[in-house]
Amino acid sequence: MNKFWETGRKIVAVGRNYAQHAKELGNEIPSEPFFFLKPTSSYLLQGTGPIEIPLESSDIHHEVELGIVIGKKGRDIDLKSAMDYVSGYTLALDMTSRDQQSIAKAKSLPWTVSKGYDTFCPISGFIPKDKIKDLNNVELWCSVDGQIKQKGNTNQMIFDVPHLIQYISSIMTLESGDLILTGTPSGVGPVKPGQVIKCGITGLDTDMQFDIILRKRN
Amino acid sequence: MNKFWETGRKIVAVGRNYAQHAKELGNEIPSEPFFFLKPTSSYLLQGTGPIEIPLESSDIHHEVELGIVIGKKGRDIDLKSAMDYVSGYTLALDMTSRDQQSIAKAKSLPWTVSKGYDTFCPISGFIPKDKIKDLNNVELWCSVDGQIKQKGNTNQMIFDVPHLIQYISSIMTLESGDLILTGTPSGVGPVKPGQVIKCGITGLDTDMQFDIILRKRN
Ligand SMILES: [Mg+2]
Ligand SMILES: [Mg+2]
Ligand SMILES: [Mg+2]
Repeated sequence: MNKFWETGRKIVAVGRNYAQHAKELGNEIPSEPFFFLKPTSSYLLQGTGPIEIPLESSDIHHEVELGIVIGKKGRDIDLKSAMDYVSGYTLALDMTSRDQQSIAKAKSLPWTVSKGYDTFCPISGFIPKDKIKDLNNVELWCSVDGQIKQKGNTNQMIFDVPHLIQYISSIMTLESGDLILTGTPSGVGPVKPGQVIKCGITGLDTDMQFDIILRKRN
Repeated sequence: MNKFWETGRKIVAVGRNYAQHAKELGNEIPSEPFFFLKPTSSYLLQGTGPIEIPLESSDIHHEVELGIVIGKKGRDIDLKSAMDYVSGYTLALDMTSRDQQSIAKAKSLPWTVSKGYDTFCPISGFIPKDKIKDLNNVELWCSVDGQIKQKGNTNQMIFDVPHLIQYISSIMTLESGDLILTGTPSGVGPVKPGQVIKCGITGLDTDMQFDIILRKRN
């Protein structure tokens, strides 16, 4: 078992990689990929606890995403060898404090807080590479209290996985255990304490489920 | 020896923590700390190689900073115990692609690329905690080709180290090996290939020196 959430040293999260999602938030479709970092302290493995809503936000959104687990170190990785650097996948949520992100954007400040709280990167665990036969045809879904909110297919990605690996590794070396979040399809929206969020990949036994609670201060 | 650069899982970099530096870039003085993440792949230990200027930037700045090495895991750390979570220090450079950062800010995008290239976090190594007697009176300096460009004292920080630890740990759990970069004093400016950058802490044997070269693609 690849415990990338215990050993990995970075989470690179790509933004606006599905045209419909870029549009739903009023953003332009990017002409090259862009990304931000989430801290590994935000990992929350399926079955180990609830997603916590921070007290300083009132608009926490779910963004279901396919995660790419890196299997070996590489820099300036080219398109044709990019998939050799992939050891597997995970189903993930890029939890986002949308109100804090909007304030940060208005002030031209980093997105780090809005993306970086503890429990803001829920994951299903490790999905071995051979479980996904066609990376360009993976359907992701996300429901809140049993209602489907997001359903999208990786065939809608603006930049596919090899292009993301090529681009990111031209800027920062990718290392074994690193995770790339590949962007979210449309349908993002708020979650509230007391709700239950469920996500899955159609046809794969990777469902994950998390309770939502209000963060308690120590 | 604490090899935090090999084991640590995040670099939390505080912005605009010296009033003079906030002003020199035309920014407001923040009323609460703000921070971004640098990837651990950007570490460059003194003596292991040069700082690389990426081909897609023509304005790379030095920002000399005091780094705080975290010694144990903590969340919601309070002011009075904050220093118990510190295992030591490092002298660091928060290398910044200022032109790419300006474009990101104008588009309300993350700062990740401009702060995250390989070699963009040069460090001196580990400085044991007892080497710095008064954390509120540490003078940092940085020279380029022998000319002093930055000289500042931690007594000019807007938010001191305990306040930074309290604030950051209220958002994301700090873990052993994590690094906090505490912001840069005024005097930031460009470096070019062929130049040599030197930094130190007055009165401590922690000088570090790096050649600047143009990045080669693999
Ligand atoms: Mg960031
Ligand atoms: Mg996302
Ligand atoms: Mg800085």
